[in-house]
Amino acid sequence: MENAVANPQTATVITPTELLEHWQGHRSLTRRVIEAFPEKELFEYSIGGMRPFAAMAQELLAIAAPGMKQVASGQVEELNEEIKEATTKERILALWDQSTEEINKYWAQVPEERFRERILTFGKYDNVVWCTILYFIDNEIHHRAQGYVYLRSLGIEPPAFWER
Amino acid sequence: MENAVANPQTATVITPTELLEHWQGHRSLTRRVIEAFPEKELFEYSIGGMRPFAAMAQELLAIAAPGMKQVASGQVEELNEEIKEATTKERILALWDQSTEEINKYWAQVPEERFRERILTFGKYDNVVWCTILYFIDNEIHHRAQGYVYLRSLGIEPPAFWER
Repeated sequence: MENAVANPQTATVITPTELLEHWQGHRSLTRRVIEAFPEKELFEYSIGGMRPFAAMAQELLAIAAPGMKQVASGQVEELNEEIKEATTKERILALWDQSTEEINKYWAQVPEERFRERILTFGKYDNVVWCTILYFIDNEIHHRAQGYVYLRSLGIEPPAFWER
Repeated sequence: MENAVANPQTATVITPTELLEHWQGHRSLTRRVIEAFPEKELFEYSIGGMRPFAAMAQELLAIAAPGMKQVASGQVEELNEEIKEATTKERILALWDQSTEEINKYWAQVPEERFRERILTFGKYDNVVWCTILYFIDNEIHHRAQGYVYLRSLGIEPPAFWER
């Protein structure tokens, strides 16, 4: 990346508010992917020894609001991917909506300069805050796309990728 | 997103140089996913009626450097997903490396303020430049993750998602 380094660009590309909207747009699509699964397949269907999509959704729930809580408060949160109450599609969707509100709430508490500070998310992952949040988003896109393959192989048309 | 809108945040989260590094990190991972496929399966293996991973890689090649060329020059580029020379894994990887250089070259030509201007990418997709580039990245993560499922179902361990 020689060219880029030779000519460092420092202007604003994305503001915090835009990054939140980008994430919530993705989260709205992921919600529709969860909805597209039949109840049984959400918890049981898998390909190549991978986890069922419900387990991936639980991971995403475990990361999103608790991760943003740590960004906002500075207090280390625990990563707990076993969400006991996430036992039905309806419950997962309710937890998803609750996370949506929590993310917005914590985001509004984050001072602007915080986005460029380092953080040890869940006491384990050392990175700058904006990189950490992009990682949350990228991880969500990654697992959601795996859900797309599950749906396709079940003969179910997934929601369009570009609709947020 | 009431909280966010009530308290708009306008500081820099991500600079252009950081966005380029983020993208090239993802592209380096996607390259390793292409490499992980056996030659035949790269071009033929599919699940649920989806495209083989070679066709997805061709789409990513068709978008990345030509998309950045348009960002840099302002001249509308054509979206041409049928890349005739991409007929072997070796050729795809060579085209991938060539794109890496082209992206860096075009990126260095982009004035900072350009990232917040509107663009009609490939004469079809109307959006702000930074959103357009994030869309390129998100689309790559999305298809690459589908490649992960193909690899897993072929009994091949894909490269770790978090290594860039």
